[in-house]
Amino acid sequence: MPHWLKQRAHLTPNRIAYVTDDEKVTFLELDNQVKSLAMKLISYGVQEGQRVALLFNNTLDFVRMYHAFSYIGAISVPLNTRLTLDEWSWQCQDADVHLLIGDPAHDQMGEQIQRLLPSISYLSLDLLTKVKENKTAELKEYLDLSQIHTIIYTSGTTGHPKGVLLTYGNHWWSAIGSVLNLGLDTNDKWLCCVPLFHVSGLSILMKNVIYGMTVRLFSSFDASKINLSLQKEDITAISVVTTMLIRMLDHLGEESYSKSLRCVLLGGGHAPKVILEKCHEKGIPVYQTYGLTESASQIITLSPEYMVSKLGSAGKSLFPTECKIIKDRREALPMEEGEIVVKGPNVTIGYLKNEKATEEVLKDGWLFTGDIGYKDHDGFVYVLDRRKDLIISGGENIYPAEIEALLLRHPNIEEAGVIGIEDSKWGQVPVAFVKLKNSEETLDEIQNFCKKYLASYKVPKQFHAISKLPRNASNKLLRRKLYDLLSHINGK
Amino acid sequence: MPHWLKQRAHLTPNRIAYVTDDEKVTFLELDNQVKSLAMKLISYGVQEGQRVALLFNNTLDFVRMYHAFSYIGAISVPLNTRLTLDEWSWQCQDADVHLLIGDPAHDQMGEQIQRLLPSISYLSLDLLTKVKENKTAELKEYLDLSQIHTIIYTSGTTGHPKGVLLTYGNHWWSAIGSVLNLGLDTNDKWLCCVPLFHVSGLSILMKNVIYGMTVRLFSSFDASKINLSLQKEDITAISVVTTMLIRMLDHLGEESYSKSLRCVLLGGGHAPKVILEKCHEKGIPVYQTYGLTESASQIITLSPEYMVSKLGSAGKSLFPTECKIIKDRREALPMEEGEIVVKGPNVTIGYLKNEKATEEVLKDGWLFTGDIGYKDHDGFVYVLDRRKDLIISGGENIYPAEIEALLLRHPNIEEAGVIGIEDSKWGQVPVAFVKLKNSEETLDEIQNFCKKYLASYKVPKQFHAISKLPRNASNKLLRRKLYDLLSHINGK
Repeated sequence: MPHWLKQRAHLTPNRIAYVTDDEKVTFLELDNQVKSLAMKLISYGVQEGQRVALLFNNTLDFVRMYHAFSYIGAISVPLNTRLTLDEWSWQCQDADVHLLIGDPAHDQMGEQIQRLLPSISYLSLDLLTKVKENKTAELKEYLDLSQIHTIIYTSGTTGHPKGVLLTYGNHWWSAIGSVLNLGLDTNDKWLCCVPLFHVSGLSILMKNVIYGMTVRLFSSFDASKINLSLQKEDITAISVVTTMLIRMLDHLGEESYSKSLRCVLLGGGHAPKVILEKCHEKGIPVYQTYGLTESASQIITLSPEYMVSKLGSAGKSLFPTECKIIKDRREALPMEEGEIVVKGPNVTIGYLKNEKATEEVLKDGWLFTGDIGYKDHDGFVYVLDRRKDLIISGGENIYPAEIEALLLRHPNIEEAGVIGIEDSKWGQVPVAFVKLKNSEETLDEIQNFCKKYLASYKVPKQFHAISKLPRNASNKLLRRKLYDLLSHINGK
Repeated sequence: MPHWLKQRAHLTPNRIAYVTDDEKVTFLELDNQVKSLAMKLISYGVQEGQRVALLFNNTLDFVRMYHAFSYIGAISVPLNTRLTLDEWSWQCQDADVHLLIGDPAHDQMGEQIQRLLPSISYLSLDLLTKVKENKTAELKEYLDLSQIHTIIYTSGTTGHPKGVLLTYGNHWWSAIGSVLNLGLDTNDKWLCCVPLFHVSGLSILMKNVIYGMTVRLFSSFDASKINLSLQKEDITAISVVTTMLIRMLDHLGEESYSKSLRCVLLGGGHAPKVILEKCHEKGIPVYQTYGLTESASQIITLSPEYMVSKLGSAGKSLFPTECKIIKDRREALPMEEGEIVVKGPNVTIGYLKNEKATEEVLKDGWLFTGDIGYKDHDGFVYVLDRRKDLIISGGENIYPAEIEALLLRHPNIEEAGVIGIEDSKWGQVPVAFVKLKNSEETLDEIQNFCKKYLASYKVPKQFHAISKLPRNASNKLLRRKLYDLLSHINGK
């Protein structure tokens, strides 16, 4: 297939590709900037097939970098900017990355990683822009849908995050599945205030070139700014997670959004019914959706025509995809709970260097999500648990197992268990239970230990020392019992 | 990929799939009707991979038949209802068809073909509906994009028509390429008054299930009825050829269409500028387009944003496709005329049992269309000649070579040459020049001979007896000189 940005710049050169607070670029301008960047990267030595880590804020620089990589055939390993030095280093090493590129906001971190890992060199964007273009370099004119475009790390239940391999085809089919559900208009303008290092933001970047659709890019989420944009800038679609939507509604008060807004794509975990009802009352067209990094974003989406009659459902799987509920190795009956299992050309081919994990979740092309849900009698999917034990905090996935694994690295901790509790601001926050080897260590010290190695959103907000963690006969941690314990502690 | 109709009936069961003058069916109803039909066909013995010819008017029966075949994996060979017994028989034999199914309007023709060709049995739809369903038959739940869906005969320059192999993937990518250009709205309603046996109508049938879009189906083209529908029925899109558009405009007079109409997809040959200008004045959103059976309908389309500035251009190739102009085996310069060459996943894999013809037009995935055009400095394609020598009459392709070949079968004709001349009603009509062996044969008798073997639109409207046909050194017919001759005859 012709290179997407090249083709887009050929077909609709003068359409606006991106609008930021300070900039406006057409597809032709973007393409020229990206080609120049690609020729600089080639000068610097970046090659086809090479994996390069990216540490960027949500800026046009990040957008250009992704597309420049596709002109070279290099593979992007976008890093979550909220992680710690330790977490970044682990991901870079796991992905065999030897080059890390960052924007000015991340120069300091990048240099620290370089010092920490001699195998990695850090390239600052500032330096890169000074590199001379290799004008004779051949840029890719075609994209091969089977090639890897991105490796995105997602935390798993086994402690360490796993690198999800996403091909050009995964991203392509995700965009196509979505357009067959949401439709497309030449005036469409998608507001992006979700991270471009997540698949949610990256999928907007892909829609931008595939659809020829303007993206209004925000560097971060600020409810008042986003609301103003939704009221004044003829935005037609926005991707949000529940916590963002709650904050936007709080801030919106009695006002309403522009009539141009035709899709609020709501992902990232359980949406309280009261919020959905409030949106319905205010005429906000919410598309509830369910997706994973492994499915290159949304794979199940509720159309607005069912927003009222199927309130709370994530909908049905997109046109090129399928979904079934598996219980005891058979397909569950309607209303019967089981594991959500999905299939489609947007589903990952597996995890990087992790055949075991790949085999565990991918069977005959079906992705076993680990999430629990059911279908009603009309085939609409209801998601009950975004993965057993998964904690979703402000749209970020937190796996208890990852925090538990870190806690067990502490010399004075013998056992550890982490659960998520409701939080009015973040949706959920993690809480830790530990069995200490000796009681001299204070819980504050343990919290500081966590802060050193974990992104701040992953650091447990409460620590409780207990004498023994609840386990079943085969010694498996019973997280459910931790919830009972917490009720006791809180005096309920 | 999940079976398209099955998936569509699952996703949007209650949406209206088709509206005809008498009927309205939802996707769920259509799917149930189609499944019943498929089970009857299986009872009757229709099998996966079998080629079956179809002789149907533009009715829901034809729609159901196409989809029933896809549930079985049988291959549709739709016959042009305007052809003669001789032409149908040739196509059936070429496609190794042993079963022909027709609607009541074609029972007589079907039975005649059966009498003519003992290898073919004719099944009337009336009889089929009385067949018992094979309820235990397994219908296809998935479609393989690489499988053949249709064989559509298209006349070639070599005399006999060629069977174009179109896969499910060809149809899929045609629909996807189109949606990325035209967009999609849940209220879209496409008016189909072009034949479902042509790729133009078939592509609407495919969009119907892939987009979940309502189709307003007409059994034939009647300018007054179509205009009434475009004024009163909230139609958003219609596919037409130039002669249809001219007749619609004539009939429309000073009135205008509903504002819901957002796309008049105009294909099938040269569109006079005066017509395009008239549409622009009346606010009719014409999308000029260029396509072939070999590319599963449109492959180059002009967006309305360029309707004025690029008036007369067919536009640019759709997102997943490419187009270049080839002159003397190199890519032509801007404004330089050459052969239009296209590539994309919607392009046929070749002609049935005709490797020679396939190799002639398909090189490295590029389809050499034989049509002449150029690109302007902005890359917009202008089509000059819908294939050298091709005559387009009322949207139907007529190849002079096919008529010439028939004329040479006449015992008293030694040489023959056919050209197209302008016609106010049909756009073009064919005119024949013959060198008779003896002058006893009257030209009327020759016309009757043509009527016996050719669809009426192919029968030359004028016959001229001349003493010698103009040929070049290598004895190739110089059709251009026939135009000069005609001017002389007409006394100019």
